[in-house]
Amino acid sequence: MASPGLSKIYAPIQADLARVEERLKSVCRVDSSHLSELLEYSLGANGGKRIRPMLTLLAGKFYHYNPDLLLPMAAAVEIMHTATLVHDDAIDKSAVRRGRTTVYKLWGEEKTVLLGDYLFAVAGSLTASTQNLRAIKLFAETLKAISSGELNQSFNAFNLKQSRAQYIQRVAQKTAALFVLSTESGAALSQAPEEAIQILVEYGYNLGIAFQIVDDILDFIATEKELGKPVGADLVQGTLTLPAMLLLEQFPENNPVREWFEKRDNPENIKRAIEMVQDSSIAQECYEVAAEYCAKACRNLNQLPANPVREILFHLADYILKRRV
Amino acid sequence: MASPGLSKIYAPIQADLARVEERLKSVCRVDSSHLSELLEYSLGANGGKRIRPMLTLLAGKFYHYNPDLLLPMAAAVEIMHTATLVHDDAIDKSAVRRGRTTVYKLWGEEKTVLLGDYLFAVAGSLTASTQNLRAIKLFAETLKAISSGELNQSFNAFNLKQSRAQYIQRVAQKTAALFVLSTESGAALSQAPEEAIQILVEYGYNLGIAFQIVDDILDFIATEKELGKPVGADLVQGTLTLPAMLLLEQFPENNPVREWFEKRDNPENIKRAIEMVQDSSIAQECYEVAAEYCAKACRNLNQLPANPVREILFHLADYILKRRV
Repeated sequence: MASPGLSKIYAPIQADLARVEERLKSVCRVDSSHLSELLEYSLGANGGKRIRPMLTLLAGKFYHYNPDLLLPMAAAVEIMHTATLVHDDAIDKSAVRRGRTTVYKLWGEEKTVLLGDYLFAVAGSLTASTQNLRAIKLFAETLKAISSGELNQSFNAFNLKQSRAQYIQRVAQKTAALFVLSTESGAALSQAPEEAIQILVEYGYNLGIAFQIVDDILDFIATEKELGKPVGADLVQGTLTLPAMLLLEQFPENNPVREWFEKRDNPENIKRAIEMVQDSSIAQECYEVAAEYCAKACRNLNQLPANPVREILFHLADYILKRRV
Repeated sequence: MASPGLSKIYAPIQADLARVEERLKSVCRVDSSHLSELLEYSLGANGGKRIRPMLTLLAGKFYHYNPDLLLPMAAAVEIMHTATLVHDDAIDKSAVRRGRTTVYKLWGEEKTVLLGDYLFAVAGSLTASTQNLRAIKLFAETLKAISSGELNQSFNAFNLKQSRAQYIQRVAQKTAALFVLSTESGAALSQAPEEAIQILVEYGYNLGIAFQIVDDILDFIATEKELGKPVGADLVQGTLTLPAMLLLEQFPENNPVREWFEKRDNPENIKRAIEMVQDSSIAQECYEVAAEYCAKACRNLNQLPANPVREILFHLADYILKRRV
């Protein structure tokens, strides 16, 4: 959480974010020392930006801010996020995430799958503790969306024939859905009127899409140190993201993405694809798409009550575009 | 569902069990044909006994039987059960279940893990649709219990120093918790008074323990054809169950379980352990333990309103002990 861009954003909710950390720590205190160790390892901050709980707290700041409901919900969205990362690592057999050895690598597949299930349950339990049926139903729908999006990605691995609309739809499911859960639950739990909730849903949805597009760009242009994991991981997995799509469109001849997806025999193609994205205007073009989503995210924010948090939401959209990690 | 012992039990809820099957089929109708195929494959009856949804419907028959709430809940418990089996198969790398190739073997690990997540979400969504906070909270706690129990089993793989109390505690988490969810939700959704709910909780809990003990016995004494999967799977995985515990206690010298757990080099020990259980009174002793739990399950049933379903619950406890599959 050392990113300077974020510290300004944290300021108005810093005390409550610290309380969310406390909740996460209390989730780790269980009878079984084995499970406790797994939970501490996976839920510790350790480079996580805590953007989703931040969104819940910020979205809760416009009407009746009630920490008794918002804190467990904020913890729930972060735990759900962690659960998806834990399962992702098992699926991708990833050894490193956020510059650290994964649970998968340290404890093996069996514990990793079961830990993810346990974390989903803890997140569900925290959500249920709000007794808010809207948040509860949305929680289940969100997990459906995320796993559908991931399944869609898996079924389309190494498939070159995917439209940009399909890409956006998948990003909406696998990333934006959880951003929407974060903002919508924060708004609903603070008794925001329906129009305000919808503005924060629109914010979460578009911010989530922008966030994932930037993630997909960084997979090409950031360093391994910035990413905390190997560069080009999406291509290795056969995931066709926006930069790779533009590369396919703009360089139809002798294209490294096409060659890698069709033959999968020469990893030099991955290196070449990364270089071509870095040496072209593709990253910039992708950033422009992300910026459009950020603009959409913010377009109706001014209809929310004027308060310092409203400005923070604009800053956050700006940060999303500039972040390197 | 061809088991003759079960058909008598099904009779009073047959029509509604058919409606649960319809719900399960409707869960399979999704936009993605890939996902639809996975869902149909995993949720199809195909040898599944549907005991958990049956419990929900039966438990709902004593007070205000409301199919609008009980049918989605019954579908939810079966889907949650399916999700745990799907993840189990990924974890154990099982090729066969219920005499059929597993999702894991056909589609691979990635789809299997994500399908399980999706199924948990669908089950959660169906539970949330009842709008009953008790059922919703219990649903999340149940998933916590199941994954804790499975994690405990995983951390204790090939550990010879486990007490019978630890075994029962693990069985309570990994199996009885879902039986309790089934009966407690059925009772709560039919507005049963608290004392009646507790009688049905006690029934579900003890029946679940008995069910798992019988499962663990069958892993030694049934045929591969009856089991629909290889015999001795628990020993292969290093899971110490009640029959193996008794074998260790009664044959301290040159014990095949001990040798297999300590060295893991000679699978002949598994064969020998199976033969020793079959040639001794161990299976019978384990059945006596299971029978005690069945008796506990039923001891307060007579305090429930007298109706034909009450008799069915006694029959079901009896069936649990006699089943071979």
